[in-house]
Amino acid sequence: MQLFNRDVISQAVQLDHSALEAIENGFRALGRGEVIQPPILSMNIEESNGEVDVKTAHIRGFERFAIKVSPGFFDNPKLGLPSLNGLMMVFSAKTGLVDAVLFDEGYLTAIRTALAGAIAAKHLSRENSRRVAVLGAGEQAELQVKALQLVRDIDSLDVWARKRDSAEAYVERMRTLGLTVNVHDTAKAACAHADIIVTTTPARTPILTAQDVPEGAHVTAMGSDSPEKRELDESLMTRADAFVCDTRAQSEANGELKAFSRPARQGSDDSSGSNSFGADGKPPFKVYELGRIIAEGQRLRLSDASITVCDLTGTGVQDTAIANFALARLME
Amino acid sequence: MQLFNRDVISQAVQLDHSALEAIENGFRALGRGEVIQPPILSMNIEESNGEVDVKTAHIRGFERFAIKVSPGFFDNPKLGLPSLNGLMMVFSAKTGLVDAVLFDEGYLTAIRTALAGAIAAKHLSRENSRRVAVLGAGEQAELQVKALQLVRDIDSLDVWARKRDSAEAYVERMRTLGLTVNVHDTAKAACAHADIIVTTTPARTPILTAQDVPEGAHVTAMGSDSPEKRELDESLMTRADAFVCDTRAQSEANGELKAFSRPARQGSDDSSGSNSFGADGKPPFKVYELGRIIAEGQRLRLSDASITVCDLTGTGVQDTAIANFALARLME
Repeated sequence: MQLFNRDVISQAVQLDHSALEAIENGFRALGRGEVIQPPILSMNIEESNGEVDVKTAHIRGFERFAIKVSPGFFDNPKLGLPSLNGLMMVFSAKTGLVDAVLFDEGYLTAIRTALAGAIAAKHLSRENSRRVAVLGAGEQAELQVKALQLVRDIDSLDVWARKRDSAEAYVERMRTLGLTVNVHDTAKAACAHADIIVTTTPARTPILTAQDVPEGAHVTAMGSDSPEKRELDESLMTRADAFVCDTRAQSEANGELKAFSRPARQGSDDSSGSNSFGADGKPPFKVYELGRIIAEGQRLRLSDASITVCDLTGTGVQDTAIANFALARLME
Repeated sequence: MQLFNRDVISQAVQLDHSALEAIENGFRALGRGEVIQPPILSMNIEESNGEVDVKTAHIRGFERFAIKVSPGFFDNPKLGLPSLNGLMMVFSAKTGLVDAVLFDEGYLTAIRTALAGAIAAKHLSRENSRRVAVLGAGEQAELQVKALQLVRDIDSLDVWARKRDSAEAYVERMRTLGLTVNVHDTAKAACAHADIIVTTTPARTPILTAQDVPEGAHVTAMGSDSPEKRELDESLMTRADAFVCDTRAQSEANGELKAFSRPARQGSDDSSGSNSFGADGKPPFKVYELGRIIAEGQRLRLSDASITVCDLTGTGVQDTAIANFALARLME
């Protein structure tokens, strides 16, 4: 059994085309029905404002599967510690023995999450996408843009974040990438000319509506990953020409589809008066899954004016894919 | 962060009264509603005849919680490897940081499982219980008896196992304990004079019926821990004066209560003609939980003739309790 720490792992694995391919292959296998992916194990520790998620998946034929533990303890910054953390255990799929533990402190999760955004944009955004709007200013705001550069020739970045100073600090960090960068006062202003929009916030009420999104844009919403969070207004999801998610079950439980699930709606104060969805609690649009699109080569963008949306909640198959990729690199 | 291997862990933690108390306190906290215990994460890897379970729980006020990974790969013996394996990760409940990894290879799971059997017998069996019948001949057959010796003055052991030679080998291993031991040809014969019966098999059809169990006996069924397994005939559970389980949800999904759940019954070939349970798919008896009994000091044994049954599926709170106990010992 081998142990690896974050330093070694982050030297071995970066945002590059090989890593992207590894994650894309994971999604493809998922779309082909070649993946066993149980529901997420999730535990809240309210007394410390903490939560922990455990994800896993096995890709048929793969030598190893990962079990990934992601703690998020949101009072940690007061103690000078990062909120997010975690590790991946890598097991032999033949014997169940532990082959390695990757003490990556959440690094590989950040990488595979950013790569999923790039994969969504690769399959859904216009090929000539140049201008990216990012809502949010955290770690993923940074990594999503860097990952998008693997698949599109990005030349400018428009930013909005709830806290103006966070947005300014983020933009400073991004200056090295050679992009034209601008901070905006509203999400709508940031998105006004965007080809690709990435929402990467912990919002609990929608921050993006149909009216904010220009024709032809692709939206990747990757902030919502728990029952309380959501970023997209129902109007946008209903307006979109294609709605894609990483897995339907997770999008309904933790992602944007929960806006249309019955329990969520019953509990919510539906002041929007929106009622375009069916009485059966199902969304009034077809729900696609990213893996199926990749596996079947589906083209959901029918014109340059199409609006596409992809909701990413983070899947076990990405963890198994990145862990296998990392371990192969580390053992070289 | 500290790493510990099986050798060190098995020197620090054994079947003793302190370890029993640690697990009993875990159940008590569960019974008091002081435990967050999410559903088990479970994944089957059919291509290798393997499965992996992940369990966790947080006991309110505890400094640390464990996440336990238990792989079971049942073709391993062909490779000269044990079927069962695993490790426990111990996290700070304040920050989510990993404090330790216990590479115990399933040792602590075996210990906390045996101790749960002893705790069930402590609260449910007659105090003057002397004679134990064990159905099964694996590792738990051994540990359950040793754990019972912590709470009752056991003087004899009656054994039945599906394979006679396994039973003989088991009995040889048990000779050192100073008990009168006998191997029997049937479960009924093994149980004929038992005060305490422990079923510890991977049976998929019941091996113990109401007719097999003498008046006054306590039965601990700890073999069934997955949707396919069960050890107790419905007649026994219906006949028992008290039916207890570690957690109702797990007993319904993985333990003996699944005999009474609607989906299980619809799928089963109900040739017994038994129909004493309600049409609503609920068992026709009250279901108690071990933690509540301990927390509330309930006495379910009303007479020396009462038959009591306890179904143990294995809970995350036991894992967090034994991991905390082990870590305290290891850090001494």
